[in-house]
Amino acid sequence: MKPINIGVMGVGTVGGGTAQVLRNNAEEISRRAGRAIRLFMAANRDVERAREVCGDDVTVVDDAFAIVNHPEVDIVVELIGGDTIAKELVLKAIENGKHVVTANKKLLAVHGNEIFARAQEKGVMVAFEAAVAGGIPIIKALREGLSANHIEWIAGIINGTSNFILTEMREKGSNFADVLAEAQRLGYAEADPTFDVEGHDAGHKLTIMASIAFGIPMQFDKCYLEGISQLTAKDIKYAEELGYRVKLIGLTRRTDAGIELRVHPTLIPEKRLIANVNGVMNAVLAKGDAVGPTLYYGAGAGALPTASAVVADIVDVTRLLTSDPEHRVPHLAFQPDQLKDLRILPIDEIYSSYYLRIGAVDRAGVLANITSLLAEQGISIEAVIQKGSVSDGSAEVVILTHLVQEKAVNAAIAAIEALDSVDGKVVRLRMEELNG
Amino acid sequence: MKPINIGVMGVGTVGGGTAQVLRNNAEEISRRAGRAIRLFMAANRDVERAREVCGDDVTVVDDAFAIVNHPEVDIVVELIGGDTIAKELVLKAIENGKHVVTANKKLLAVHGNEIFARAQEKGVMVAFEAAVAGGIPIIKALREGLSANHIEWIAGIINGTSNFILTEMREKGSNFADVLAEAQRLGYAEADPTFDVEGHDAGHKLTIMASIAFGIPMQFDKCYLEGISQLTAKDIKYAEELGYRVKLIGLTRRTDAGIELRVHPTLIPEKRLIANVNGVMNAVLAKGDAVGPTLYYGAGAGALPTASAVVADIVDVTRLLTSDPEHRVPHLAFQPDQLKDLRILPIDEIYSSYYLRIGAVDRAGVLANITSLLAEQGISIEAVIQKGSVSDGSAEVVILTHLVQEKAVNAAIAAIEALDSVDGKVVRLRMEELNG
Repeated sequence: MKPINIGVMGVGTVGGGTAQVLRNNAEEISRRAGRAIRLFMAANRDVERAREVCGDDVTVVDDAFAIVNHPEVDIVVELIGGDTIAKELVLKAIENGKHVVTANKKLLAVHGNEIFARAQEKGVMVAFEAAVAGGIPIIKALREGLSANHIEWIAGIINGTSNFILTEMREKGSNFADVLAEAQRLGYAEADPTFDVEGHDAGHKLTIMASIAFGIPMQFDKCYLEGISQLTAKDIKYAEELGYRVKLIGLTRRTDAGIELRVHPTLIPEKRLIANVNGVMNAVLAKGDAVGPTLYYGAGAGALPTASAVVADIVDVTRLLTSDPEHRVPHLAFQPDQLKDLRILPIDEIYSSYYLRIGAVDRAGVLANITSLLAEQGISIEAVIQKGSVSDGSAEVVILTHLVQEKAVNAAIAAIEALDSVDGKVVRLRMEELNG
Repeated sequence: MKPINIGVMGVGTVGGGTAQVLRNNAEEISRRAGRAIRLFMAANRDVERAREVCGDDVTVVDDAFAIVNHPEVDIVVELIGGDTIAKELVLKAIENGKHVVTANKKLLAVHGNEIFARAQEKGVMVAFEAAVAGGIPIIKALREGLSANHIEWIAGIINGTSNFILTEMREKGSNFADVLAEAQRLGYAEADPTFDVEGHDAGHKLTIMASIAFGIPMQFDKCYLEGISQLTAKDIKYAEELGYRVKLIGLTRRTDAGIELRVHPTLIPEKRLIANVNGVMNAVLAKGDAVGPTLYYGAGAGALPTASAVVADIVDVTRLLTSDPEHRVPHLAFQPDQLKDLRILPIDEIYSSYYLRIGAVDRAGVLANITSLLAEQGISIEAVIQKGSVSDGSAEVVILTHLVQEKAVNAAIAAIEALDSVDGKVVRLRMEELNG
């Protein structure tokens, strides 16, 4: 079967990430999609840069209309941003019968009703997972995963720049201006940060989520926007004393009187999971009448996380263009003839860190004996604490190890349990950092 | 268009929830699916109970084979559990060309390879979102949302009973046996809790996720299982002193040597979001090479949350049976002719709680003045703290209000700012409980 041809318009951060993901994961992606997916064309003002990023086998042009008009392009990926030229290109692509994938939240929040109507008429897909919360598959969750529910409200931390600034303000007690300057140095904030810190970006994303959740047209012009530039470190501190965190929240809620649609700094009880989403990370909390609260967390921006969503949309469209409906998504994600019978490791071959609790007769030398038995197995120690009373002649030693193979730990434990100075069985628990 | 006919086999907790969701949200679900979805038949050993739950317009039978053999049933929902009769029924339904939705993790983890092969041959769908983590749309996230990624590992809190027990053991310092007895009283644990507390249930779910993440056949028999029944409150306490929480984690990771597939109690740094998932709630943390870490949180069990996933699968299948591929999921979740132009509320009509910080000349009576102005607007007070020094004659009053309409707060603020004893502008921040 011939590959699906992708034309990417705009080879900046996300465009570069998209090219990278399509290249690096090409084999795995085609095993999932049931068909090769090829970056066929790219358009960028700086043609040289696009050529470096995309490689020699991709046709690079400086005029994006050459992509939307090219007969061999199947899916157009719009990563230009804004709602002027991007809108023209997307409408032209639709008119030409091309499927569209876009990360452009402003375009959809402002012109989505028109764009979707045209796409519907022309029988093409406009996919936009990357437009909201970057790599988190929140559009899919709301539109498909929660489709059984009457959705009551959605609250999201959906602007990474603002969340980074608020996190720093709280942790360091700094004021807005100083943290903004730091964020600009780190590349987390634009030179003109208005779009992020005054809530516009979050408002676009919230408008899209509200529309999907409640079945209403996009109406960004009615979204209330209030940013974080007026926030003081003092109020963040007082809020914390009262048990709250201050977050820039996009909130939409269905009420009898109408739909609430608002972005503003918000105090949230610190015990909520979403109150503990820090730095540039994003999270969306959605409340359905059947499912209750569900939360989706991940990177809301950046080249590769956003590309993850762009390429997921490309796979989604490809699956629909390629398979019969009943085989749209393979049961096990990969096509049935593409499963690999990888070996499952027996438990003693895994690597982990370990928590060991050892009952010891509290006698000089016991810790030295234990640590030398660990060292014999090549096990290095992260932390040791001693517990229990010396008075009754017994103690407990708790040891955290670094990463080691389980069979080495088991051998060390057998040797430790054989020591005269050790009492009973060693308690062994595995530890995982899970730090991505 | 004629409705999609659903046949539910097993009208217990989840079956009852499914009937309830299909009934309560019928209008919204058909606006999303593009077609009415009707509970047409139900099978249950206790026919009387099923009739009460499903209502008079549903044909209730005691023999589930009557459903899989009925020519008018489009989608069979298997909620019987286990892998004996349920397997026979699912295979017969597939043979009869029916699409299947199931919440049965054991059936899939043990017999999934055979079932999916048959479904592939017969061109029918077997959907199983409800089999893993209840209402959290994690199958969809892994299989579609993260399809661009080389998935590196998945770690999940995927057994609510165990997580409830571990949460109670930590919070109360109780031992396993006492908390288990309490969980049994509350209905969070079965009379025979082995399946949950020894990791079998988590192992089934983990097996399914590993298969989808890595493109490998189901192989539950190679999954390492270690439960929580041997855990002591002492080790949980020591772990906490060291900055860790102990959770029953299902972990699968791709390594050069093979796939790790293991369920066991695990120490996790307490600062990780997943370490703070408490009680019966579930969460899955998935790490992809492009997207980085993403987390999915929600209710992992219960009648309505599980029904949310069952019905989402029914909608998914219905959309595929009903629409052209390019209109599979409507852009805005609801069919284009089913959008409603609900009113968006102006910001002064919303209801919220508020944080107010008021600069006051520290003078007897100022708090009384402020609170009476709040009372005039019907605003009741949740908390007051006084800040700042009395020595320089100034103070700050921080007030948290109960829920009130924004226009009332604004009116109160205008009146407060007009007081002689009040200095400057009142700082007003909105508060949200976000407690589901």
